[in-house]
Parts: sequence; C-alpha cells; structure tokens
Amino acid sequence: MQTILVSFEEMKKIFTGILIRHGFTPEKAEKCGAVFAESSLEGVYSHGVNRFPRFIQYIQKGYVLPDAEPSLIHRFGMMEQWNGNLGPGPLNAFFAADRAMELATEQGMGLVGLANTNHWMRGGSYGWYAARKGFLFIGWTNTTPNMPAWGGKDPRLGNNPFVMAVPYGESAMVLDMALSQYSFGKMEEKQMAGEQLPTPGGYDRDGNLTDDPGKILESWRSLPVGYWKGAAFSMMLDVFAAVLSGGLSTAGIGKMADEIGVSQVFMAIDQEKLGNFPFIRQTMDAIVDDLRKSIPMEAGATVRYPGERAVRTSEENLKNGIPVDARIWAEVCSL
Amino acid sequence: MQTILVSFEEMKKIFTGILIRHGFTPEKAEKCGAVFAESSLEGVYSHGVNRFPRFIQYIQKGYVLPDAEPSLIHRFGMMEQWNGNLGPGPLNAFFAADRAMELATEQGMGLVGLANTNHWMRGGSYGWYAARKGFLFIGWTNTTPNMPAWGGKDPRLGNNPFVMAVPYGESAMVLDMALSQYSFGKMEEKQMAGEQLPTPGGYDRDGNLTDDPGKILESWRSLPVGYWKGAAFSMMLDVFAAVLSGGLSTAGIGKMADEIGVSQVFMAIDQEKLGNFPFIRQTMDAIVDDLRKSIPMEAGATVRYPGERAVRTSEENLKNGIPVDARIWAEVCSL
Repeated sequence: MQTILVSFEEMKKIFTGILIRHGFTPEKAEKCGAVFAESSLEGVYSHGVNRFPRFIQYIQKGYVLPDAEPSLIHRFGMMEQWNGNLGPGPLNAFFAADRAMELATEQGMGLVGLANTNHWMRGGSYGWYAARKGFLFIGWTNTTPNMPAWGGKDPRLGNNPFVMAVPYGESAMVLDMALSQYSFGKMEEKQMAGEQLPTPGGYDRDGNLTDDPGKILESWRSLPVGYWKGAAFSMMLDVFAAVLSGGLSTAGIGKMADEIGVSQVFMAIDQEKLGNFPFIRQTMDAIVDDLRKSIPMEAGATVRYPGERAVRTSEENLKNGIPVDARIWAEVCSL
Repeated sequence: MQTILVSFEEMKKIFTGILIRHGFTPEKAEKCGAVFAESSLEGVYSHGVNRFPRFIQYIQKGYVLPDAEPSLIHRFGMMEQWNGNLGPGPLNAFFAADRAMELATEQGMGLVGLANTNHWMRGGSYGWYAARKGFLFIGWTNTTPNMPAWGGKDPRLGNNPFVMAVPYGESAMVLDMALSQYSFGKMEEKQMAGEQLPTPGGYDRDGNLTDDPGKILESWRSLPVGYWKGAAFSMMLDVFAAVLSGGLSTAGIGKMADEIGVSQVFMAIDQEKLGNFPFIRQTMDAIVDDLRKSIPMEAGATVRYPGERAVRTSEENLKNGIPVDARIWAEVCSL
C-alpha cells in the first residue's frame, strides 16, 4: 500500500466539491464533508476518507437522499422524536445532537430519538461536537445485523456503536465503541497483513473461538465485547433505539436492501446547569491524576483516558497531512 | 455445601426483623429486606441472602446509617442532584429511581444524580422496579477500584454495574452487568469448585491472560469486558457518576475505609409520553421473534433476551423455596 499525505483543508475542499456535484447544497456539503475529513484527521480512517466512496455510492443508489430534512414527529417535555427521512446520516445526527443540546439548555437534559436515518459514520463525531460546546453526551445507533446473539450462530444483533462524551479542559473525554470486539474492517486489515488478532475476535465455522481474522470473516460470527454481556447490551441498545425513535430495530434494518433507515438516540446534559459545575474540572483532574498513577504493564508507557489519543493524532495529522492509501485517494478524486 | 430451601415470605420476614433490630423503622426494614429477598428469589444470591451479613456489618461499623434520608442539593428542569447522606444504599436508590420517574412523568424523562450513598446491592432491582411501573430505565453506580485501567497493572477502575431496563408485556427486559468479565464472587465460587472459567477472566501475577480463577484472585487483576473497550466504558461511567452527582469518583472511594460514599445515576423515561407508545409492544415482539429465529449453538436450545431467565428462576424459587447455603442461613439467623 502506497500512502500519500493530504492536508486537512485540501481533503475538506475535495469532499465538499464532490458532495455538491452529488446534489448537496454548498452549506450541507461543507458540513457533511467536514465530518469525513475530521474523522480522518483524528485517525479514524475507516469512517473517514476510506468510507467516503461508499457514502457516494449510497447517494447514487438512492439510499441517502441529499436534500431530505428531518421532521418532528412528537414532542413531550424535554423529549423529542424526529424522522430522518433518509437524509444524510451525519447531517441528521448533527441536527439531532443540536436539538438535544437546545432542550438541555432549557431543561438541564434533552433526549432526541431519530428514526429512519442513515449511517452517522463515526459516532464519536457527535460526542466531540457536544462536549466541545459544554454538554455531556450519550448517544448510540443501531445497525444492520452483524453479530450473533449469545447462544446463536447467525447474525441477529447489531454492533450498535455507543458514545459517551464529557467536556474536559479545552477538549473532551470521548468513548466511541462498537459492541463487536473488532470491526470487520479491522479484521480485513489484519487478514491482509497476514496477522492474528491480539485477542479472540469471533468463531470459526465449527463454533470454536479464534483469533484468526480470516476464519471469522468466513463464518461472519464476530464476538461481542465481553461475550454474553456485550450481546445483551447490544440488544438493549437496539430496543431503546427502536422504542425511543419509533423507528426500525436491527431486525427491521436486516430486511432492507442495505443498511438504511437506522434508529438513533441522542442525550445531552448541560454541564452549566449542574450544581457542582464550578468543581467539575477538579473532579475530572483527580480522576485523570489517579489514572496516571497506574503501574504500567510496559515500563515507561502512559495509561491514557478515552479520546486522548485522538487529540494527539489530530495534531500530528494537521501538521504533517493526513495519511491516505493512494488508491483510495485516487478513487475519491474520481467521484 | 449443604443447601436448604427458604420460602420468599420467610426470608423477607427474617431480614425485616433483623433490620429492625439494627435501627431501621419497620417500614424501611420491610422495603430494604425485600430487596435482598427479591434478588435471592430471582437467582442473584451474591447480592441477596449471601450479601446480607456484610450489609449488617456495614451498619455496625457505622458505614451505613439506617435512619439517614437523602437531601436535595440542586434542581434544574428535569435534573436533580441528591446527597444520600450515607443512608442504606437500596433505600436511597429506590428514592432516586422514584424521583427520576416523577420527573419523567412531568417532562418525559428524569435524571437524578445521587452522591454520598452506599452499595445498592443488585443494580437490576431498580431496573425491574422502574420497568414494572412503565418506565424505561438507565442507571449505574461507581464502585471502589477493583480493575486495572487498560495498560495498567493495579486497580484504578471500578467494575461500575450498569443497568438498562424496558417494560415488556407483564414484565420487563433487564440488562444488569458489571464491567468486569467475572465478579470476584464468581471467581471464588469457581475456585472452590476446582473449576476453570469458561473464558479468560484476568491476568496472573506475570501479566498473562488466564482462565484460572485462583491466579486472578492472587493478582487482583480482573479483566474488563471487551478488554480496552470495557476499561474505557468503566472510566466514562465513573466520570459521569461523579460529575452528575457531584460525589466521589472511584479514585475517591478508594481512599475511604471501605466501599462507602459511592455515586449513582438514575434516568427514567415515561413510555406513555412517547408518540409511538401504542406500537411499542409490537416493536419489541418483533425483536424477540427475530431473536428466537437464531440458529442455536446447541441443538434445541433457546436464545433468551436479557432478564428472561430471572423471571423463570423467580417462578421456580417462589414455588419450591429459595436455595440457600445452610451455613450462610445460620449466620443470617444469628444476626
């Protein structure tokens, strides 16, 4: 693989231009293109530049409707339910996160259920976004079935990425985790490199746990985080997403032509409305200080908090350019 | 181990009597005793009858104050922060769950942060409680440090039990999971039985992953669910618990004489206030129907939803009596 370096500004400009050519207004194209560029900047290439061609494909197939806008279905108190009308996932998700923050500004906390939307790309994007505006954030999406239930062989659960974020100093702490131990993208990467996974990642065709990515890609039986625990958590996230949005569950998405019409949940809490607001920084510093006192498994290593690495990668990529597979970049530029 | 059978009513009566002798009012004793009896009824003996003697010890040591009541620290919109004043964990937790439900009835959703409280015993208790009243529930507690951070050797994180519950038919779906792959109680049980864990549960003293419970009990290095993912999730739950309640973080609890003064979060959503309320049963039935279509790993087995087993165990134990280690029951009756 030949890697080239693309500057963040250049990448944003290219993405924006392509999106305009595929039916986005300039304003929407810029906002949506920025999500892909920022994910790449922060090192999440799988949901950034590497995913961009597939996003354009979904537009061409009519799965993602560039000019669709979310519409309000129901409101009660600080809780709203919106229909994403199959608009672009990232734009719908930013809209829902904004609504949750507006409700939180009024009521302390806001809850938005978003039905009938599309893949939001990197879930962490909405966590970083809300946390940088001063909100604690919890959000998740359901997905197409890609993981067996516990005790089952065939995919019935989604890996349902789950995000928690909290403002921290000039930046944020952000957890962004899918509920499969490894993504299929990661397993493909390892297979291509001829490497094993560092821990078991799924089952082979005979039902044995394995760290061989090729065997898991064959069986399509990836492992939920924590075995039965992650399987149960995934199912609950799906139930909550479908119930709170009124939209499709993972089982319903599995009946669609592709992964379209997903359901999402957005919760925001306005930290300034907490009684202990003046002490939050001190509380979090104490947690991080304690974490740093960990006796490291490898001498000299530093134990990091969730999201810490993304900030460093971002700084490096901003300075040096974002590393991109030359073939993928050529494909992007031809769109 | 000699097992005897104790009826649910008998167990409740015994617990209530003991709690009254240790300073509880009859009303509080009955409510608190019921939590221990119900956890046992539903098969969670570790946080039911087996934990009861330690609860009484904590009262005797002055860690749990039988007559303390929670006091309101701060309110904004649908968000409240309460001080548990080191009262009995289960009573404080029911109180906080009730407040979250009252706020949800007004605003769709309610959020309560509870600081300075005590171990809530089985987290699932509050999920079942809220779901049976028609509320979706999300809640968690932090704990004393009992798990290393990812990349660290010594305990810095809590296993921070996390609960999600949703009404389902006459009953509920309930997830109740600690973020360690196995509890120390489970590992002690396996060690006594001379058995290995079914999957790796932690590290030995040399830093190797192991399924030998004895070696993990020696190193005190239990494994987070999903390795780095559960470690990060645990840390975020702790940050949220400390920030939303204004109370101690896991690091702060680690400095106390024992596991006292924990922080908890309670979120309730009133399902009747959702626009799709009439369709929720149908949505959930479709999810369960799809789950049942799983090709089972073992021929003839049924794939279950979270909490399904508890309902069956409860029915069996109600009919036959609750199985209790005779020595533990003798100890309880002597309190």
